[in-house]
Amino acid sequence: MKLALCQMTVEKDKKVNLQTARNMLHQAAEEGAELAVLPEMFNCPYDQGYFTAYAEPDTGESLSMLSAAAKAEGIWIVGGTIPQLSTEDERIYNTCFVLNCQGQVVAAYQKIHLFDVDLGEEARFMESASFSPGHKVVSFAFGPLRIGLGICYDLRFPELVRLLSLQGAQLLIFPSSFTKVTGEAHWELLLRGKAVDNQLFIAGVSSAPNPSASFHSYGHSMVVDPWGRVEASLGVEEGVLIVDLDLGKVATVRRKLPLFAHRRTDLYRISGVDRKMEKNRG
Amino acid sequence: MKLALCQMTVEKDKKVNLQTARNMLHQAAEEGAELAVLPEMFNCPYDQGYFTAYAEPDTGESLSMLSAAAKAEGIWIVGGTIPQLSTEDERIYNTCFVLNCQGQVVAAYQKIHLFDVDLGEEARFMESASFSPGHKVVSFAFGPLRIGLGICYDLRFPELVRLLSLQGAQLLIFPSSFTKVTGEAHWELLLRGKAVDNQLFIAGVSSAPNPSASFHSYGHSMVVDPWGRVEASLGVEEGVLIVDLDLGKVATVRRKLPLFAHRRTDLYRISGVDRKMEKNRG
Repeated sequence: MKLALCQMTVEKDKKVNLQTARNMLHQAAEEGAELAVLPEMFNCPYDQGYFTAYAEPDTGESLSMLSAAAKAEGIWIVGGTIPQLSTEDERIYNTCFVLNCQGQVVAAYQKIHLFDVDLGEEARFMESASFSPGHKVVSFAFGPLRIGLGICYDLRFPELVRLLSLQGAQLLIFPSSFTKVTGEAHWELLLRGKAVDNQLFIAGVSSAPNPSASFHSYGHSMVVDPWGRVEASLGVEEGVLIVDLDLGKVATVRRKLPLFAHRRTDLYRISGVDRKMEKNRG
Repeated sequence: MKLALCQMTVEKDKKVNLQTARNMLHQAAEEGAELAVLPEMFNCPYDQGYFTAYAEPDTGESLSMLSAAAKAEGIWIVGGTIPQLSTEDERIYNTCFVLNCQGQVVAAYQKIHLFDVDLGEEARFMESASFSPGHKVVSFAFGPLRIGLGICYDLRFPELVRLLSLQGAQLLIFPSSFTKVTGEAHWELLLRGKAVDNQLFIAGVSSAPNPSASFHSYGHSMVVDPWGRVEASLGVEEGVLIVDLDLGKVATVRRKLPLFAHRRTDLYRISGVDRKMEKNRG
């Protein structure tokens, strides 16, 4: 399976961002990718001053571009994330839309762990000042393959990753924008660690750092295999990375080390709860 | 807090092993350690041909040596593991005993994930042919500090590590004997990844590889801090590594990135079940 990681530079101008993304999706298709991935906040600077102003309903120009691109290029798209103005509850979410090659939205994941942290002078963020947290763990079928979704900070929560793997995911995709300081310390470690614990592929797709922006992302988009090897990675430059995944590796690694058979579900259990379903039941 | 990692070479002769361990515990105390840690199967070759023959009841010579050493040296000991013949159920467990500085057993952890794997020519193991699996997650109080226990292969199961951290552990100790092949691929990654996910210290204590034994352990005992930095480590040589832990780092890292406050317990829950208690209730 051919995956494209589109590590794009995000500018202040939304139209420029949509054009950059469109060009990269075209390049991905030209190079034979079946599924292309954009980074977190690909249409909007990662800066609290912009999230609300850039938010769009599902009829907005960003999702329209993604849909048209998927159809025109004949590829699936994991559309990074955009600030989504929900038509359901009028809240703003940090949302990842997935489009099939007919341009239809087949999944939407709203980030469940918001990045409210104080790393001192290096970085202070309060995503919850702009975004509402999502309330559902999301994976989708890509042919016979199940793909799980997470966004950036979500990568730090082993329960989410485990739930996605228990849903049957063999590939996880994390559109991201790690900060430079946490990226240097943890980005590769988190991707490799979660891949090894859950014996699956993980693709982390970051924006390229933009020196003229307030926020400097870490870059270094990469794909890690189920044994924890970095299959391919970018540095800080803008670029489309094509990775051909040998999905058979998942079964090979799981046969060698049968971690899922060895889980002691008599001693611990991890349960996922769909809050909306709970509410409807209640 | 001063911790001693005793990376000892394990020989075929149990008496030699007990003497080596005794010498290292003395050295650890001499160098100011408050708590000393031995590796997995410190008294017995890591080889299925030996586990049953080397098994001892709680009145056996290995636990007696540990108790006497703790009292004589005035230190706490996490006594690696030994094959334990349980007086309760006559089964054999891969067990870690913890002794306080009066020589009393204050905790006993029986490995819950047994290493039944087929890594091809490199390594084939079937621990369950010799050992019964434990049925309890164990941590203990060391003054105001809570310390969680795991053994080797347990390190691959994020649920166990999370349960220990939710019990309040700020330091995890993993007596281990990783194989060379999995050690090279995953030992440091697993220790660092779990430390970062759970924002605590982890000490992994391995035996030193013995070229004359059937099993060549990876060695590389190390301590990782809550930010995922390797604080200190050994190579493949025998030796006692003293590490002075700055336990304040746990709070500092958790203040920077409040992961525990951000866990979405409305969307997922991890529950630990004490099987014995369940049985008694049933």
